[in-house]
Amino acid sequence: MAGIIVISRQFGSAGRTIGKETAKRLGIPCYDREIIEQVAENSGFAKEYIENQGEYASHKTWLGRALESANRFDGMSNQDKIWVEQRKIILGFASSPCVIVGRCADYILDGMDGVLKVFIHADDKFRAERIVREYGEDGGNAEKRLKDKDKRRAAYYKKYTETEWGVAANYHIALDSGKLGIEKCVDILTDIYKSGL
Amino acid sequence: MAGIIVISRQFGSAGRTIGKETAKRLGIPCYDREIIEQVAENSGFAKEYIENQGEYASHKTWLGRALESANRFDGMSNQDKIWVEQRKIILGFASSPCVIVGRCADYILDGMDGVLKVFIHADDKFRAERIVREYGEDGGNAEKRLKDKDKRRAAYYKKYTETEWGVAANYHIALDSGKLGIEKCVDILTDIYKSGL
Repeated sequence: MAGIIVISRQFGSAGRTIGKETAKRLGIPCYDREIIEQVAENSGFAKEYIENQGEYASHKTWLGRALESANRFDGMSNQDKIWVEQRKIILGFASSPCVIVGRCADYILDGMDGVLKVFIHADDKFRAERIVREYGEDGGNAEKRLKDKDKRRAAYYKKYTETEWGVAANYHIALDSGKLGIEKCVDILTDIYKSGL
Repeated sequence: MAGIIVISRQFGSAGRTIGKETAKRLGIPCYDREIIEQVAENSGFAKEYIENQGEYASHKTWLGRALESANRFDGMSNQDKIWVEQRKIILGFASSPCVIVGRCADYILDGMDGVLKVFIHADDKFRAERIVREYGEDGGNAEKRLKDKDKRRAAYYKKYTETEWGVAANYHIALDSGKLGIEKCVDILTDIYKSGL
């Protein structure tokens, strides 16, 4: 296995755009929504449900816990089923050069040769402006939504990987897209890839 | 103020070497030991004492606490005095382009324009091999010493900055020198600097 870039990112930090641009320059595919689509196809769960399960806070209400155990017909929660399916799909994608965005791919492919683990982040101002512009989010709520999304991603990550999300030592490179600019981030990743992982 | 690179680093990750090499390529000074020397000159404390105070764990023994309060003749601990002196010296160095390694310079210069905050890290194997080779450390103790040094740096950083050491979002760029190689880290930092901070 060789030549895989996996990108984890703060919400609104342009991690997905950086992944897509880098893949385009390198002439390799970028998988992001495709993972969810494939999980949906293989598991029968709706895409939106899968997406929500991937950002589920680990501290559940009693109702959340009750619903979760009601779902455990075969001893696995729906979230666990999605995790297993997702893991399989990511390992499949990683059999040839590509960029993979999100879904704990950094953890799933950890320790494999030829994998570059990337974390993209930016300050709240850059991200809030970006989600208002790109996703049409309400400006007043943007910062609250950022914190909420990051918290959910961190909790999901922690639950399945038992590792802290966003700790520099867990990635080969972490970039502030607000400070450096999206283009420069793409330049750096493309250059590292071409030098050989 | 423009054109300052500040480097925080895990012990043994070659952060100092990367700083020195980057500065050399850019034709600007790199401050590292110079900070301690200047603090020694201005404060009268011995260099070794200053160095130790910069890696002082915040969880002290009763003896440590007793000695610290015995030192507070004028309401400031020696460690606080060193911090104040060090801060002044770092701000002085930062009045013209340079590279600064360690001593919480990233925090001291936080929010200023034209500053690039860098974190260098590497896995334990890379670092252990490096400290045995470079510093003549005993191989058997190397990994223990790494953990101890990092813990002290993190505790000192936390005490004076109230921020977590090594969290990706606190740096503009974080690099794994073991994975990427020292040369590549220097290339990336030199290139970012030349593109303008």
